[in-house]
Amino acid sequence: MTMLEIIEKKKFGQELTKEEITFFANAAAEKTVPDYQLSALLMAIRLNGMTDRETTDLTLAMRDSGDIADLSAIPGIKVDKHSTGGVGDTTTLVLAPLVAACGAPVAKMSGRGLGHTGGTLDKLESIPGLNITLSVEDFIRQVKEIGVAVVGQTGRLAPADKTLYSLRDVTSTVDSLPLIVSSILSKKLAAGSDAIVLDVKTGSGAIMHTLEDSLKLAENMVRVGVLAGKPIVALVSGMDQPLGTHVGNALEVKEAIDILAGRRAGGDLLEVSLTLGGFMLHLAGKAETPEAGQQMMKQAIDSGAGLEKLKQMIAAQGGDPSVCDDVTRLPQAKVVRPVFCGVSGWVTKMDTMALGLAAQAMGAGRMKVDDELDYSVGFVLQVRIGDRVEADTPLCVLHARSEADADRAEAAVRAAVTIGQEPCGRVSDFFAVVTKDGVRRLGADS
Amino acid sequence: MTMLEIIEKKKFGQELTKEEITFFANAAAEKTVPDYQLSALLMAIRLNGMTDRETTDLTLAMRDSGDIADLSAIPGIKVDKHSTGGVGDTTTLVLAPLVAACGAPVAKMSGRGLGHTGGTLDKLESIPGLNITLSVEDFIRQVKEIGVAVVGQTGRLAPADKTLYSLRDVTSTVDSLPLIVSSILSKKLAAGSDAIVLDVKTGSGAIMHTLEDSLKLAENMVRVGVLAGKPIVALVSGMDQPLGTHVGNALEVKEAIDILAGRRAGGDLLEVSLTLGGFMLHLAGKAETPEAGQQMMKQAIDSGAGLEKLKQMIAAQGGDPSVCDDVTRLPQAKVVRPVFCGVSGWVTKMDTMALGLAAQAMGAGRMKVDDELDYSVGFVLQVRIGDRVEADTPLCVLHARSEADADRAEAAVRAAVTIGQEPCGRVSDFFAVVTKDGVRRLGADS
Repeated sequence: MTMLEIIEKKKFGQELTKEEITFFANAAAEKTVPDYQLSALLMAIRLNGMTDRETTDLTLAMRDSGDIADLSAIPGIKVDKHSTGGVGDTTTLVLAPLVAACGAPVAKMSGRGLGHTGGTLDKLESIPGLNITLSVEDFIRQVKEIGVAVVGQTGRLAPADKTLYSLRDVTSTVDSLPLIVSSILSKKLAAGSDAIVLDVKTGSGAIMHTLEDSLKLAENMVRVGVLAGKPIVALVSGMDQPLGTHVGNALEVKEAIDILAGRRAGGDLLEVSLTLGGFMLHLAGKAETPEAGQQMMKQAIDSGAGLEKLKQMIAAQGGDPSVCDDVTRLPQAKVVRPVFCGVSGWVTKMDTMALGLAAQAMGAGRMKVDDELDYSVGFVLQVRIGDRVEADTPLCVLHARSEADADRAEAAVRAAVTIGQEPCGRVSDFFAVVTKDGVRRLGADS
Repeated sequence: MTMLEIIEKKKFGQELTKEEITFFANAAAEKTVPDYQLSALLMAIRLNGMTDRETTDLTLAMRDSGDIADLSAIPGIKVDKHSTGGVGDTTTLVLAPLVAACGAPVAKMSGRGLGHTGGTLDKLESIPGLNITLSVEDFIRQVKEIGVAVVGQTGRLAPADKTLYSLRDVTSTVDSLPLIVSSILSKKLAAGSDAIVLDVKTGSGAIMHTLEDSLKLAENMVRVGVLAGKPIVALVSGMDQPLGTHVGNALEVKEAIDILAGRRAGGDLLEVSLTLGGFMLHLAGKAETPEAGQQMMKQAIDSGAGLEKLKQMIAAQGGDPSVCDDVTRLPQAKVVRPVFCGVSGWVTKMDTMALGLAAQAMGAGRMKVDDELDYSVGFVLQVRIGDRVEADTPLCVLHARSEADADRAEAAVRAAVTIGQEPCGRVSDFFAVVTKDGVRRLGADS
């Protein structure tokens, strides 16, 4: 078997065998074939597709290309959560403590941000002293002791994905369903959980911009997850505007703390966190229904058990838990500037990706993998799509390193938020739930 | 403009602009973008195609990526000939002297063989002393003085093709019409001739195996040639069996000399050489019709003018012209072994590629670009498709380096030639002539 033969088959639109797919995944992991052959195959896969069987084999081969975390020492059903990535999306920091407080173990490996979306690890590191690099033993011990840990990858998980992901980025082969599915699921499967809840984003800040494509991705993920033998539920949720109001690392930690402290009555971030967490508790066998799981989490907010769990986690990972009582102990930006709408009308649209890139340009995200972040910077949006605004309505509060940075960010945020002269409805948080039994659509498509 | 944007457009099946195509060709020539991006684009082109306009722009951009030979110092219309490659195809050595003897200048740059097809330069170098590396000045002076020169590339012609050709070979993107057309025509246009005669091979030893695909390639070549402003004619000729009876470098030179000396009354190699040469003389303005050109060439054989011209060319390029009077002065193999059919029946089929690979394995061709050749080896086929044979009919004469080599070659030739029990018709030499006015089909498709 040679790489050239495998490329040739896929070029002709033929189905690859399990052996051929395994050869490809191992070659990617071990870098035993040149990048130009990998990228030719990636493009052939992007254009000619893969069957569910092929995608499943690729997922499993990528999972098996490295270490697989063994979480069996942790009692109970471990449910992982994954989001396809969004702006102001800090659900992990909200739901991990709440789900743990409700009795389900949360042993979560997260990633860093790149491009316009933030990464949970970066947000966590904005908490003074917090360490996300734990040994497997410490990771498992912490989950056994306090029920929750959110850390960086332990071991060498799915190295095939590492090679392919960076190649896809520079060869225009990111937007391939089988490649997205195998990339996400191989890592999730290697992370060792018993069940998975997926949050597939749709809209201007998501990997898939249309609901149709996002639904296809969710269905594909669930089909392949089932074929790979994991209980799996996928939600399709909106990314037509940042999920939370806070965008930026320390700012997002503050928003999560505010929510856990019960200082936020509602909002999309809370809503989405409760929904995803409800499914996690249900899959973990801790709630009869996802709705019952949501009720348990609300009680954990009211009782303070969720915030207490976050404090325990921060302390266990070496961080300063007092940030939960005094959010001003989080990194603070030099320049804080309110920005007003300047015109009256209705907020009709947000370019979420542009907002993410604006925060990135302020220093909240990386342009290159080795860029240093400024945890303090970002912005807090004061409006949501559908809001009626006047000229003096606050649009956002910028947290910047300098007045010049704030000037640039102000222009970028203004350009990304459309204020129109016609009233506009609010947008939905959720569009669909996809399980092995099919698609259930929720609410109305905006 | 970035390479990533160009890949993305072609991935979506969009038409690339002239500027984008030029960027790509120059990046390939100068190696300013990584191979994995070039190969991703090559696969996207292979799968999503190119319009004639794009193929023309790619051809011209590849031509312009390096030097362009200036043949204007040579009086008259310079007509180049190109074959898409075959086995036992030594038309250049037959027609170049004949066309020159009929008064049309032949200033030809040829290539080396790789894989199962031979290269004209390798054949020429089997003539003791002959030099194919001439300066541009010497090349032009020789054509002005004696009317003919066949040499290696002068200067740095179409370096974009050099990069892309080697990448295509290892990424399964050889079989793309726009990439084949631009590769061939860019080099031909850079070689500076005024008009082009193409020989597009079809059959088991050709780049295109079916007549339909070969016709498509010929039509594509002519359309793009016309758009690029060159008078161009393409013939589609058969490669269901080796064109000549001799396969191997010195053996093919011997066959060309035999033909020019009038020792061969007919045969496919003569037929194809006369046809291609007839078109060359017609395009060069030396013959009213291609058929009239063929008659002139036949007279040049009968008068000995063609063989005399070959002698002049060999002498001018430092070779020993006496090989034309005594072919035993060409390199001779140690082992010469006749092989007999062994069964009676009809020759119904030949695997031409397998025959080419058999000669390659004997040492006549390269496995890798830096392999050394043995000019003496190869074989002379004694049968053609359609022949009635008996067990004691000679199948071929092997010219090998050793008995062991001869054993292997004998097995390979036997396996490649099918002797069946049903009579079988002869195969056509030519299937179609393609000009800017359309396709004219010739004879019957076997």
